[in-house]
Amino acid sequence: MTPTRLSPKPSPSLDPQSTPSDGFITDREATRQAREQQVGQRPGTLNVHEGALPPRLFLTSYDDTTCFEEEFTGRYDELLEYMRTHPKLKHWVDVRGYNDLPLLERMMQDFGLHPLQMEDVLNDYQRAKMEVFDEHRLFMVSRMTDFTSNLEIDDDQLSIFTGPNYVLSFQDDYDDCLDSLRVRIRSNFSTLRRHPSLYLAYALTDVVLDHYYPTMAAIGDYIERLEEAIFAEKRPKRLLNRILRIKKDVVRFRRLVYPERDKIAEILRLPEEVMPETLKIFYRDAYDHAIQALDLAESYRDNISSLTDLYLSDQGNRMNEVMKVLTMISTIFIPLSFVVGLYGMNFQRHDDQGHLLPHNMPELYQPWGYPVVIGVMVLVVIGQFVYFYRKGWLTNR
Amino acid sequence: MTPTRLSPKPSPSLDPQSTPSDGFITDREATRQAREQQVGQRPGTLNVHEGALPPRLFLTSYDDTTCFEEEFTGRYDELLEYMRTHPKLKHWVDVRGYNDLPLLERMMQDFGLHPLQMEDVLNDYQRAKMEVFDEHRLFMVSRMTDFTSNLEIDDDQLSIFTGPNYVLSFQDDYDDCLDSLRVRIRSNFSTLRRHPSLYLAYALTDVVLDHYYPTMAAIGDYIERLEEAIFAEKRPKRLLNRILRIKKDVVRFRRLVYPERDKIAEILRLPEEVMPETLKIFYRDAYDHAIQALDLAESYRDNISSLTDLYLSDQGNRMNEVMKVLTMISTIFIPLSFVVGLYGMNFQRHDDQGHLLPHNMPELYQPWGYPVVIGVMVLVVIGQFVYFYRKGWLTNR
Amino acid sequence: MTPTRLSPKPSPSLDPQSTPSDGFITDREATRQAREQQVGQRPGTLNVHEGALPPRLFLTSYDDTTCFEEEFTGRYDELLEYMRTHPKLKHWVDVRGYNDLPLLERMMQDFGLHPLQMEDVLNDYQRAKMEVFDEHRLFMVSRMTDFTSNLEIDDDQLSIFTGPNYVLSFQDDYDDCLDSLRVRIRSNFSTLRRHPSLYLAYALTDVVLDHYYPTMAAIGDYIERLEEAIFAEKRPKRLLNRILRIKKDVVRFRRLVYPERDKIAEILRLPEEVMPETLKIFYRDAYDHAIQALDLAESYRDNISSLTDLYLSDQGNRMNEVMKVLTMISTIFIPLSFVVGLYGMNFQRHDDQGHLLPHNMPELYQPWGYPVVIGVMVLVVIGQFVYFYRKGWLTNR
Amino acid sequence: MTPTRLSPKPSPSLDPQSTPSDGFITDREATRQAREQQVGQRPGTLNVHEGALPPRLFLTSYDDTTCFEEEFTGRYDELLEYMRTHPKLKHWVDVRGYNDLPLLERMMQDFGLHPLQMEDVLNDYQRAKMEVFDEHRLFMVSRMTDFTSNLEIDDDQLSIFTGPNYVLSFQDDYDDCLDSLRVRIRSNFSTLRRHPSLYLAYALTDVVLDHYYPTMAAIGDYIERLEEAIFAEKRPKRLLNRILRIKKDVVRFRRLVYPERDKIAEILRLPEEVMPETLKIFYRDAYDHAIQALDLAESYRDNISSLTDLYLSDQGNRMNEVMKVLTMISTIFIPLSFVVGLYGMNFQRHDDQGHLLPHNMPELYQPWGYPVVIGVMVLVVIGQFVYFYRKGWLTNR
Amino acid sequence: MTPTRLSPKPSPSLDPQSTPSDGFITDREATRQAREQQVGQRPGTLNVHEGALPPRLFLTSYDDTTCFEEEFTGRYDELLEYMRTHPKLKHWVDVRGYNDLPLLERMMQDFGLHPLQMEDVLNDYQRAKMEVFDEHRLFMVSRMTDFTSNLEIDDDQLSIFTGPNYVLSFQDDYDDCLDSLRVRIRSNFSTLRRHPSLYLAYALTDVVLDHYYPTMAAIGDYIERLEEAIFAEKRPKRLLNRILRIKKDVVRFRRLVYPERDKIAEILRLPEEVMPETLKIFYRDAYDHAIQALDLAESYRDNISSLTDLYLSDQGNRMNEVMKVLTMISTIFIPLSFVVGLYGMNFQRHDDQGHLLPHNMPELYQPWGYPVVIGVMVLVVIGQFVYFYRKGWLTNR
Repeated sequence: MTPTRLSPKPSPSLDPQSTPSDGFITDREATRQAREQQVGQRPGTLNVHEGALPPRLFLTSYDDTTCFEEEFTGRYDELLEYMRTHPKLKHWVDVRGYNDLPLLERMMQDFGLHPLQMEDVLNDYQRAKMEVFDEHRLFMVSRMTDFTSNLEIDDDQLSIFTGPNYVLSFQDDYDDCLDSLRVRIRSNFSTLRRHPSLYLAYALTDVVLDHYYPTMAAIGDYIERLEEAIFAEKRPKRLLNRILRIKKDVVRFRRLVYPERDKIAEILRLPEEVMPETLKIFYRDAYDHAIQALDLAESYRDNISSLTDLYLSDQGNRMNEVMKVLTMISTIFIPLSFVVGLYGMNFQRHDDQGHLLPHNMPELYQPWGYPVVIGVMVLVVIGQFVYFYRKGWLTNR
Repeated sequence: MTPTRLSPKPSPSLDPQSTPSDGFITDREATRQAREQQVGQRPGTLNVHEGALPPRLFLTSYDDTTCFEEEFTGRYDELLEYMRTHPKLKHWVDVRGYNDLPLLERMMQDFGLHPLQMEDVLNDYQRAKMEVFDEHRLFMVSRMTDFTSNLEIDDDQLSIFTGPNYVLSFQDDYDDCLDSLRVRIRSNFSTLRRHPSLYLAYALTDVVLDHYYPTMAAIGDYIERLEEAIFAEKRPKRLLNRILRIKKDVVRFRRLVYPERDKIAEILRLPEEVMPETLKIFYRDAYDHAIQALDLAESYRDNISSLTDLYLSDQGNRMNEVMKVLTMISTIFIPLSFVVGLYGMNFQRHDDQGHLLPHNMPELYQPWGYPVVIGVMVLVVIGQFVYFYRKGWLTNR
Repeated sequence: MTPTRLSPKPSPSLDPQSTPSDGFITDREATRQAREQQVGQRPGTLNVHEGALPPRLFLTSYDDTTCFEEEFTGRYDELLEYMRTHPKLKHWVDVRGYNDLPLLERMMQDFGLHPLQMEDVLNDYQRAKMEVFDEHRLFMVSRMTDFTSNLEIDDDQLSIFTGPNYVLSFQDDYDDCLDSLRVRIRSNFSTLRRHPSLYLAYALTDVVLDHYYPTMAAIGDYIERLEEAIFAEKRPKRLLNRILRIKKDVVRFRRLVYPERDKIAEILRLPEEVMPETLKIFYRDAYDHAIQALDLAESYRDNISSLTDLYLSDQGNRMNEVMKVLTMISTIFIPLSFVVGLYGMNFQRHDDQGHLLPHNMPELYQPWGYPVVIGVMVLVVIGQFVYFYRKGWLTNR
Repeated sequence: MTPTRLSPKPSPSLDPQSTPSDGFITDREATRQAREQQVGQRPGTLNVHEGALPPRLFLTSYDDTTCFEEEFTGRYDELLEYMRTHPKLKHWVDVRGYNDLPLLERMMQDFGLHPLQMEDVLNDYQRAKMEVFDEHRLFMVSRMTDFTSNLEIDDDQLSIFTGPNYVLSFQDDYDDCLDSLRVRIRSNFSTLRRHPSLYLAYALTDVVLDHYYPTMAAIGDYIERLEEAIFAEKRPKRLLNRILRIKKDVVRFRRLVYPERDKIAEILRLPEEVMPETLKIFYRDAYDHAIQALDLAESYRDNISSLTDLYLSDQGNRMNEVMKVLTMISTIFIPLSFVVGLYGMNFQRHDDQGHLLPHNMPELYQPWGYPVVIGVMVLVVIGQFVYFYRKGWLTNR
Repeated sequence: MTPTRLSPKPSPSLDPQSTPSDGFITDREATRQAREQQVGQRPGTLNVHEGALPPRLFLTSYDDTTCFEEEFTGRYDELLEYMRTHPKLKHWVDVRGYNDLPLLERMMQDFGLHPLQMEDVLNDYQRAKMEVFDEHRLFMVSRMTDFTSNLEIDDDQLSIFTGPNYVLSFQDDYDDCLDSLRVRIRSNFSTLRRHPSLYLAYALTDVVLDHYYPTMAAIGDYIERLEEAIFAEKRPKRLLNRILRIKKDVVRFRRLVYPERDKIAEILRLPEEVMPETLKIFYRDAYDHAIQALDLAESYRDNISSLTDLYLSDQGNRMNEVMKVLTMISTIFIPLSFVVGLYGMNFQRHDDQGHLLPHNMPELYQPWGYPVVIGVMVLVVIGQFVYFYRKGWLTNR
C-alpha cells in the first residue's frame, strides 16, 4: 500500500478583499453554541438541530479473508439482518446525518445505547471524551478540525460506539474524511482486518488526529504570510485584526485538542479487560501525536505573540518616522523664517521729522546685505543636515 | 414533551446614555460582600439580611402515578402534616424568601439541618459546595447567574437539602426559574417521577447549569458589539472601560462556576451508597456542562484581551493619523512661508545716500519675479504630495 | 446574643497631602524583616525584639456553668496556682507582650513548649502554620491583618498552644481584637462554653479570619476611589503610584492568607484522635472563609490590573488631546500665515528704471483685493472646522 | 584520559548582511513538520523521507579486555555473523542513514523491533521518549540540538534499542557526534567496558545531554551581543526581529528538552529488574544535567523578555529625543518670529489725508528701536536655554 | 551566648560612575557556566577547575565535654590518625579549596564517597540537592548567596557528607562564613555538642539559609533606592537597565533557592532510620526559612514589575510634558503670528493710476489701529492661558 499524503491545504490569502468585514476576533462560534443550548430540558432528550442532514447508512463488514461494503440508506432492517446473519464478521456501521429521530431511537434500542450518550451524539458541540458503558463497551467523541478559507477553525464531531463485533460511527456530514480508512480495509493485507473490532475504533480516532496536522500547517502558512506582511511597504489593512484572529483560532484549536489528549490518556488507563495491552501500544502512538499537535499550537501562540510585539513596535517606528520628518522640516525652516522675518521689519531709517536713525537696521542698506544673508542661511541648512546625518535621521532609521 | 428553548437574553445595548456613570470596572459587589461580613460572631448564628423576602412555601409531591402541587405559605404545619400522611410520595419543599427566622429554626429541627448549614443558606454569598451529613444526606449550594442590563453578573443562591423521600430547596427570590422543572414533573411520562428523590436534587443542579449558557451568550453578544464599536467611525465614549468591565464580569463568572464544577466532581467521587452509579451518569453529564461553560469563559477572556490590544493599537493609530495631518500641513506650508518671508525682506535698493545697491533682492525688480515664485511654490507642493503618496500617508493608513 | 457587626473601616482618603512621600510601591516591610533576621544563631534561641511590650497576663476560666475572668499581670504564680486548683475548668491564658524573657522561659517549662516553637512566637514574622507536638497538642500561628490609613497592610501575629484543658495565646499587642470572643464566653448560653478547650482554639482562629473581611473591604473602597480618580478632571498626583501601591498590598494580603488556608487544610487532614470530626465541621466552615477572602484578593488583583490599563490608556488619550489641539491650531493658522506672508512680499511694481512691472503682485492693486483675501481665509477656516468636526476632533474624543 | 572540552561554538555574528531576509520569527520548522505528516496511513508503516542518506553500519564490540571496531556498511550479514560468533562481547551497532528500507525491515526482524518503534525511528520529528518492550528491553529516542549560523536550533534524532548484550543506535547523519564515546571505549581502563551494555545506552543519552550546553552557550553569547546592540549609537536593523527570533529558538529548545527530562524521570521510575540501581545513579546525574539545561533556558527567556522591554523603552526614548529637538526649536523661534512679524506690520504713520498717526508703531521711529528689539530677543533666548537646561533637555537626558 | 546579628550589607550605590558598562541585564554567569561544561567525558571524572585554591584542612572534634580545633593543612594522615584514635568524638572535617586531586581521591577512598558525588563537589555549578548513599549516609549540596557591589548575585557551593561520627564539608573559598558555627561549638553549653553529628550537617545547612536574608535585604535596599530614583528630578542614566538587572538577580536568587527548599522537603520525607524525628523538627524550621526567603523573592519580583510599569508611565508623562510645552508655545504664538502677518500685507492704498483703494486694509490708517491690535492680541493670550489653566496644563500635570 502506498502512503497517501494529504496535500497540504492552501491557506487563505492575504488579499485585501478577502477580509471578512465582521466576526473578526471574538469567538462568535462559541457564542452561537451558548445561545443554542437548551435550557430546562430533561437530560437525555434527543433534539435534532435544524439543518441536520437525512441519515445515510454505510456498512463495511470484514474479517481476515472477506470484505463487504454496501450503502444501506433507508434499509436499516436489512442492515440489521445482514449483521445478524454474519456474526463472525466485524461490522462498521457508519451513520452520516442525524435527521431521522425514529431511526436513531431504534438504533439506541437495538444497540443498547444510553439516551444521554445519544444526546451527546446529536449535540454537535460535545468536547472529546470517552466513556465505558455496559462494562466492556466504549463510547468515544472526537472532534475533527479544518481551517477554512474564512480564517476559521471548522470542527465536526465524530461519535463512536464499540460493541463485541461491531463499531458504530456517527457524523453529520456526507464528506467522507474516513475514506482513507475504507481504502485500508479493502486491502487484502491490511493488519486492520486481522485486529479485533476495537482496533477499528482506534483507527477512526487516529484518522481524526491525522487531520490536525494539515489544519495546523495551514495556520502556520498563514502566520508566515502575516509576518511578511508586517514589513511590507504597503501593510494590508487591519493587520493586527488578522493576527489576533489567527490567535483566536489557535486558542480554539487547543481547546479542541486538549480534551482529545485527555481522552486518549484515559483510554491508556483502562484496565486490561476493557482495552488489551496489544491495542494500548497503538493508543500510546496516538497520544504522542496529540501531544505533538498541542506542541505545535503552543509554538504558534508564541509566534503570534511575537508578531503582535513586532506589529506594535513597528507602529511606534512609523510614528517615529513621521515625527522625524516634521522635526527636520521645522528645524530647518523655522529658524530661517525667523531670519527672513527679521529683515522684514519696518524699523524706519528716518523719524517723523526726517532725522536719520542710523542704528535702525543698517544691514538693509549694505550693498551685499542680501547675498550675505542668503549665504548665512545656506550654511545653517548645511549644518543642520550634518547634524541630522550624525543622528542617523536621514538614513531609514 | 417539547423542548423549551430559553430565548437568548437581549444583551445590554451600547447606547451612549446607558453608560452607568460609576461602579465601572472594579468588582463593587465583592467589596460589598466583604463589608457585610459579620465579625466575631458565633459560627452557626442565623442572621436574616436586610431586605430578605417573607418566605413562601411550595410543596410538590409525586410518584410514578400521582402529582400534587400546592402553595403552603403560612401553613407550615399543614405542609408537615401532608408529608407525614403521604410517606410513599417524593416531596419537594421549595422555600422562597428567608425573612422568618422562627420558621427557619423550626425547619432546622424538623428536618435535622445543622446550624452551620442553615447559616450558609442565609449567607447569600456562599461559594457553590457540597457536604454530606447524617451519613447519607446531601447539602448542596449552587449559584445561578444572570447578565443584567447594567452589565453586571447577577447571582442568586440555591441551597438544597436531600432527605430519604424529600428535597428541600431554599432561595431568596420569588422569580421561579425552577418552573421548567415543575413542568417536567407535571408531565405524566416524566422520567423524573420514576427516579428517587435524589434525582430531583440533580435536576435542580442541572437547571442552574443550564442558566449559565444564556448568561454567557448575552456576554458574548455584548463582546461582539464592543468589537464592532472599536472600528466604528464614532467610537462610543469610554470604550475601554466597557471592555474592562465585561472582563470583570467574565472573571466573576469563572469565580462562580469553578466551585460549581468542583462540587460536581466531588459528587462524582461520593461512594456508591451515598450516590448510586445510576445517578452519577447524570452528574457526569452535568460535569461536562460545567466544563463547557468554563471553556466559554476562557474563550471570552482571550477575546477580551485581544479587544484590549486592538483598542490600544487603534488609539496609537489615531495618534498617528493626527501626527500625519500635522506633519503634512507643516511640511507643505512651513517651507512656503519661508519663501514668501524671504521676499518680504526689506533690503533696500538704495542706500541712505541714494546709491543703487544692485545685489539687494534683484528678484523683486524682475518683470516675471512674482509669477516665477508662485510657480516654484506650486511645484514644491506637487513634489511633496508625490512624496506623501509614496509614503502611503494620503491613503487611510 | 446580638451579632456585633464590625463597622467597616474608613479607608484612607485620596487627599493630596496625605500622600506619603516615600516607601511607596516596594514592599519595605519585607525588606525590613529580611534585614532583622538573625544569622548564624543557634536555632531555638529566644530573642525579644526591640520595642516589645512588657507582658500582661489574662486568664479566662469557664465551664458550662461558671465563668471567671481576671488579669494576672505580674502574678504568674497565682495564675498557675489557680489553674492547678481548678482542673475541671477550661482555661484560656492570654499573654500580651513578650518583653520578659524569664517569664516566657518559665512558661515554656511549665506548659512543655518546644524552644523552636517559642522562637516562632517571638519571631514576629512567622507565616501562618500548624504543628502537632506531644502527639495530641497543637501549636498554631495566625496572622491578623489591618489596612492602615498609611495604605499599608499591617499584620500582627497570634500564636496559640492547646493543652488538655487550656489554651495559651500570645500576641505582642495590647489592643484586644479578641474581645468579641470574651463577650461570647461570658454569655450564659454560649455554645463555646459547652465545647472542649480545642474549640476555643478554633474560635480564636475564626476571629482572625473574620478580620480579613474589613481589611479587604477597606482596600476595595480605596480601589473604587482610585477608579473614580482616574476620570476626574483633576487627576490627583502620582495616581499610578497609588494604584501600584494598593496592588502591593493585595499581593501582600494574599501572601499572608494563603498559608492560613493551607494551615486549616492541614488541620482538616489531622487524624480523628487529634481533631475530632465534631470540631472539623467548624474548621471546614473556616476553610470556606479563607477561600472567600482569597477569592476577593484575586478579584482585586484583576481590578487593579484593569485600573492600570485604564490609567495608561487615559495617559495616551491625554497625549492625543494635546496633539489634537496642536494639530488644529497649526492646521488652521499655518496656511493662513502663508497667505498673509504671500501678500507681504515686496515684489515691486516698478523696476529701477521706473517701468511698470504689471505681473508683480497685481492683486495688491485691486480695489477689493484685501476683502477677497480675508473672505477666502474665512472660507478656509470654515472648511477646516467642518473637516475636524467630521473627524470627531471637536467633540471630547 | 584527558577530558575533551568541546570548543564553544562561535555564535552567529550581528553583521547586517547576515540577516536572513525571511523565516524570521515564526517557527517555520514546526510548520514544515506539520505539513509533512502522513495522513490516513496505517500506523506502523515505514516511510523513508526524501533526502535520507544510504545507511552506514558501524560495529563496536568490547568487553573488559578486548575492543573491536569495524565498519560493516553493505555487509549486514557479516555483522550478524560476527555478533553471533562473539556472544560474550557487548556490541554497539551504529546505523547512520535510513535510506534502505529492506535492510531496516531485516533488522526489525532480526532484533525483534516493533513496527511502531521503527516508524518512530524513521519519523524524524519524534519527541524524546522511552518505552519498555519485550519486558526487559528499552527503546529510547533523544534529540540532539545545535545552534546554526542561521540563528536556528537544528535538531537531530538519536534512537536507541537495547538488547541483552547489544545496543542499536540509529541516526540520519554521518557526522559522528558520538566520537567522544568511541574514544572512551577504546581506552583500556574505561569503566564503560566494565559495565553491562545498558550502560552504553546511558552513555549515549549522556552525550546528547552534553551537547545541550554548547547550544545554550552560543545562544547566550548571541543574546549578550543583542544587548550591546540595543545601546549602540547605530542600532542594527530589525533588532527586535532578532530578539524575538532568539526567543523562538529558546522556546524551541525548551520544547525539545522537556521531554528529554521526562524521559529520564521515567527511566528512574523503572523497576529494579529493568534498570538496576547501580545504573540509576548515573541517570540521576543525567537528570540533574537536563534540569540545569532547562534552568538555563528559563533564564534566557527572562533575559530576552527584559531585552524586549529595554528595546521598546529605548524606542520611546528616541521618540522623546526627537520631540525635544522639535520643541526646543519651536519654543525658541516661534516667539521670536512673532516679534519680528510684529514690527513687520504696515500700520501707517500718516492717514490718507497725511495727518500724523502718532500711536501707530512709534517704536519703529525710535533711534535705538532696532538694537533694543534685537537685545530683547537675545535675552529671551538666553532665558529659554536656562529653562531647558533646568529641565535637563540639553543634556542627553 | 549573645546572638550575633549579621550587619546588613551596604547595598551598591546608585552613583552614576559605578555603572558597569557591560554585562548588564543578561545572565552572563549562566552562559559562562554553560560554556565551561565538559562534553563527552566519562561521568565521574574529577576535574579541578582553573583557579581553584589549594586545599586547607580544618578539624573540629567535640563531644559533650571536650572540644578540639586544629588546622591540618598538608597533614591529612595526621588528621585521619586523630579521627581513628578518638572514635567517641564527633568530627567535623572542613576542606577549603579543591586544588589537590590526589588528596581528594584519597579522601574518596578513605571516606567511601562515590565518584559521581565527588564530581558534583568539584563542579561548582551544582543545584542544591540531597542524596542518600550507603543506606544511611547523606550527601548534600547547598548554595550560599551574596549580593556584590557589582549588582550580581554571587553564589558559592557548600558540599556536605555525613558519616557515623563525622561530617565532611567542602567549599572552594577561604572566607569562613561558617565561623558563627565554630563559635557555637566552642561554647560549653551548646546544644550542638549534645546532638549527634547529623545535627552538625543540619547546622551547616541552616547557616546557608541564614545568609539568604542579608542578600535579600541588600537587594531590597537597592530596589528602594531605584524607586526613589524614578521620581528624582535628574534621573540617573540607564535606570531601566538597572531595574531589569535587579530583576535578573532576583530571578537568579529564586533559581538558587527553589532547589534548596526542595532538598529540605526531601529530607523531611526521609525514613526515621535515616533522619530521626528529633532532627526533623529542626529541618522543618529550616523549611519555613527557605519558604520565607522565596516569599521575599516573589515579593521583590512584583515590586520590580511595578517599578517597570512606573518607569514606562513616567517616560510617557515626560513625553507628554514636552508635547504640552510645544503645544502651548505654538497655540499662543502661531495665531499671533498670523495677525501680525496679516497687517504686514502690502495691499496698496492706491492703484497704479493713483486712485485711492479705500477697502485695502483701512485698519492700517486708523489712528488707534496699532494699539487696538496689540490689545486684541493681549486678550487672546490671556484667554489661552485661562484655557490652559482649566485644562490643568500649567500645573505640573
